Amino acid sequence: MVKDKIRPSLEEIKPYVPGKNPDVETVIKLASNENPLGPSKKAMSAIRAGLKKINIYPDQHALLLKDALSRKLGVSPAHIIVGNGSDEIMQFVTAAFLNAREQVITSKHTFSTYEFVTRVFDGEPLFAETRDRAHSLDEISGAVTLTTKLIFLCNPNNPTGTIFTHKQLVKFLNQLPKGVIVVLDEAYREYVESKDFPDSLALIKEGRDIIVLRTFSKIYGLAALRVGYGIARPEIIKYLNLVKLPFNVNGLAQIAGAAALKDTAHVKRSIKNNKAGKKYLYKELDALGLDYKKTEANFIFVSLKQNADEMFLNLMRKGVIIRPLTSFGLPQAIRVTVGTPAQNKKFVEALKKVL
Amino acid sequence: MVKDKIRPSLEEIKPYVPGKNPDVETVIKLASNENPLGPSKKAMSAIRAGLKKINIYPDQHALLLKDALSRKLGVSPAHIIVGNGSDEIMQFVTAAFLNAREQVITSKHTFSTYEFVTRVFDGEPLFAETRDRAHSLDEISGAVTLTTKLIFLCNPNNPTGTIFTHKQLVKFLNQLPKGVIVVLDEAYREYVESKDFPDSLALIKEGRDIIVLRTFSKIYGLAALRVGYGIARPEIIKYLNLVKLPFNVNGLAQIAGAAALKDTAHVKRSIKNNKAGKKYLYKELDALGLDYKKTEANFIFVSLKQNADEMFLNLMRKGVIIRPLTSFGLPQAIRVTVGTPAQNKKFVEALKKVL
Repeated sequence: MVKDKIRPSLEEIKPYVPGKNPDVETVIKLASNENPLGPSKKAMSAIRAGLKKINIYPDQHALLLKDALSRKLGVSPAHIIVGNGSDEIMQFVTAAFLNAREQVITSKHTFSTYEFVTRVFDGEPLFAETRDRAHSLDEISGAVTLTTKLIFLCNPNNPTGTIFTHKQLVKFLNQLPKGVIVVLDEAYREYVESKDFPDSLALIKEGRDIIVLRTFSKIYGLAALRVGYGIARPEIIKYLNLVKLPFNVNGLAQIAGAAALKDTAHVKRSIKNNKAGKKYLYKELDALGLDYKKTEANFIFVSLKQNADEMFLNLMRKGVIIRPLTSFGLPQAIRVTVGTPAQNKKFVEALKKVL
Repeated sequence: MVKDKIRPSLEEIKPYVPGKNPDVETVIKLASNENPLGPSKKAMSAIRAGLKKINIYPDQHALLLKDALSRKLGVSPAHIIVGNGSDEIMQFVTAAFLNAREQVITSKHTFSTYEFVTRVFDGEPLFAETRDRAHSLDEISGAVTLTTKLIFLCNPNNPTGTIFTHKQLVKFLNQLPKGVIVVLDEAYREYVESKDFPDSLALIKEGRDIIVLRTFSKIYGLAALRVGYGIARPEIIKYLNLVKLPFNVNGLAQIAGAAALKDTAHVKRSIKNNKAGKKYLYKELDALGLDYKKTEANFIFVSLKQNADEMFLNLMRKGVIIRPLTSFGLPQAIRVTVGTPAQNKKFVEALKKVL
């Protein structure tokens, strides 16, 4: 029996529930917060130019990409680690810092990978209550105990698009005991419009024990390539590197990431499309009298008065895939990615038919 | 102090020592057992065709690639897991099966990632003596204790190119206690000429607790893309999947792997080149009176009477990068990849000058 051989902690691990991919071309996918404008053309060209050398192992230190990020972010390459998606870096964090039975705090109804990487390293996840659908930093600091090692917070929050501010974050960090490391998952940072959003890099430069995660999967349109990065004090990055398999980031992702960073026109277009899409969707959701959250990201959280899985199926029959939030513990809510104008319109029309 | 926060087991983790990449184009790299004929052209075309959709997350189950592998190998897709390189699957094995302080056996002087993935999950690595530079299955079974959970064996062995046979493997497996899982790393399997090489898939079909690892990084020429696979009974694969991050294998790697599998002409050319290169190198190494091992892989192990790191530097000055085996615990041995005829000749000429 193989079951007798597994690690006991595996019994608590739940499989990830992804956004559904379309079965036919006419169906549109607004389920995984991908960039509806597609990948950066500069990234695509860089990949084409690199194809002849894919028989060679990638740079294990991702030096060129770290160099490009370093110049963009104004931190040294020693402040940066690159991962096979930023979710891999979440696992480096637990691999490097989490001992068995230490506590990891996150919020209820948030990205499930924080729980996953905690369980893989035998930690104890604790889920703080949210307030008004957003992270409650008060609930979280109230939950801290002597065994708390890590806190995972996504900001903007997935799936609600809400944020906490710089001021709120500083107050929160000041209350924490010294042994705690805070991971700030800023996957949607580039979409944020609020002026009060945390300047997390400034907090790293102050010497705080925080790890900031960002990704090329969202605004840069490279989700298929799996490349994200972490920023922290070099002393922290050193230990994350120690638990990293040498060739974790594929060579085409390294090349494409560096090219996408330089494609500021693509980023600007993507932000503009998102702003316009938010405005349109707010108006239509208001007109439908639906309860939704104003978002700082590229998706909108909508509360329903009906079962989300049913809504998902009904919308799919009309050609639109959204994300039912049942796997987030919210069986009466959905999350919809802001798409192109045509996609947003198709979603609204489908929604009107199924409500 | 960050050091106070890390997991104690990290103190034993040593960074991976990779093959050096050339600084200038005129230098040839025979250090990492990459395919000197380059990537499959079919794989390159498949990537070009897939570029427009790299803004979409990859299939978390790698269904198309598993399907292609399933047909090629004659096992069901449920027998297969795909990894971000086969080294990631090594880590899935320890994540799924290794409890803290359980023992993991491998040989001295072999691929270092077995030790790495053991330490990440707080296991106790034990290194069995080799015999005549090859794995000694007797030494390994003699080292098994009540706490032994896993055994990692690469066959052909890296860095010596030696193999153990089907008969030897079956005898070895029959002696093992029920609780032990054996990982057979067959990264170089496609290069094997010996008729006595284990039919490991037949052993899986018999219901043995073995996990076979293979890769697209070697003969298929896709090292930059990071894609390898594991084959085992579905009951074992199920648990490996449970500890896998959802989007571990990038989309271009999935596409390219499936295309490379179909490119039998590229594989045949690569085998032919390797056979001819082995023959040429044997002859030249014999003429130089050097002590080397006959290989079943795409590299040759050479024992020196001098320091390998010095030899590495001297050869690099002549334009050839090989792998000094100091990091394998063999400070007087090198490993050289079988290259193209021109590369092999350049290596031999450089060697003659520096010996």
